[in-house]
Amino acid sequence: MVKYILTYFEVRGYAEAARQVFHLAGVEFEDRRVTHDQWNAEIKEGTTLGKLPILQVDGFEIPQSQAITRYLARKFGFAGKTPEEQAWVDAIADQFKDFAGPFREYIVAERLGKPTEEVARIRAEVSVPAVESFVALLTNILSKSKSGFLVGDNVTFADLILADILVTLQKNGFINNESKYEKVLEHQKRVHNLPGLKNYIETRPDTQF
Amino acid sequence: MVKYILTYFEVRGYAEAARQVFHLAGVEFEDRRVTHDQWNAEIKEGTTLGKLPILQVDGFEIPQSQAITRYLARKFGFAGKTPEEQAWVDAIADQFKDFAGPFREYIVAERLGKPTEEVARIRAEVSVPAVESFVALLTNILSKSKSGFLVGDNVTFADLILADILVTLQKNGFINNESKYEKVLEHQKRVHNLPGLKNYIETRPDTQF
Repeated sequence: MVKYILTYFEVRGYAEAARQVFHLAGVEFEDRRVTHDQWNAEIKEGTTLGKLPILQVDGFEIPQSQAITRYLARKFGFAGKTPEEQAWVDAIADQFKDFAGPFREYIVAERLGKPTEEVARIRAEVSVPAVESFVALLTNILSKSKSGFLVGDNVTFADLILADILVTLQKNGFINNESKYEKVLEHQKRVHNLPGLKNYIETRPDTQF
Repeated sequence: MVKYILTYFEVRGYAEAARQVFHLAGVEFEDRRVTHDQWNAEIKEGTTLGKLPILQVDGFEIPQSQAITRYLARKFGFAGKTPEEQAWVDAIADQFKDFAGPFREYIVAERLGKPTEEVARIRAEVSVPAVESFVALLTNILSKSKSGFLVGDNVTFADLILADILVTLQKNGFINNESKYEKVLEHQKRVHNLPGLKNYIETRPDTQF
């Protein structure tokens, strides 16, 4: 049996979609959650790109969250069925990455200790518009879907990424009851109620990000 | 014969690696270069994600540069030979995407018409460190390579991405004669001298980005 170790911090963040691919596939893995101190003192220096998450596959290391998630998803069948479906799954994952930069700007400003007013301004002027535009694009894709999933007939890692960032948006006050969030919230329910995920979602560590 | 149309602006930018995959593979495609006015007036509204590049494959549209490049590279054999090689090619492409954000900050500041001093400050404090760290990581990977390519025995789209961003760094004054650029410049020569690329590189439109 292949031995998988997925190392990341004690949050959902950039490792959550990969963790969920393991759960969906019913494949055992070590969900290794480390503190920033452990990372800096014990792990970082030996890595090629100096970043987490890192997946070890029988000791062979793969870095970068999307590379990891795609690797697992292709292996276990959650990456799209045809090359064209796979390209669309990848495109949605890339779009998420484009969104994550501006979205995170207020978080970065907060961590840098910028004044509350400046953080609020960045949140309102950069992060909120990024959320609205990302949600609108994904809503548009979902409204054309017959299966209720983003690409093709089945769940892919693009669905996992969207459903998880929604959790982050909910926990950080970006989502209200407006109808513009209806489609993505319905989609989130559909994904998180999948047999392979339901129990994990209910019992995983509850984190803000 | 499959009909490919790759639409992008009149620069190398985010479409160049995909163009070069076609040239390496010796596969015909329409290299459609549009102005910003054409894009805004005629094309943008009908697209799903509202961004270029877009690849049409017999009319089927694929957006997002990395999704496009990976789709073509997997089809034509420039994406790594094993799932593990493919994951590393993807990881390097993701690392490039992480680098491109901070690198571009001074360009964005310039386009927003910020004062010259502010642009220079952003270039020195954000873009230059991003370049140095990216080049150091890739130099490290190259120095462990036996083939002279980034992953495995052959050229992949990760090599195309690195060799092309080096052109941009050269044309915009980021690269000097220091030995820390030696490995990546050697690598660039190796890639751009490949039989499928040499003529294209010598005759393509000469653009700053």
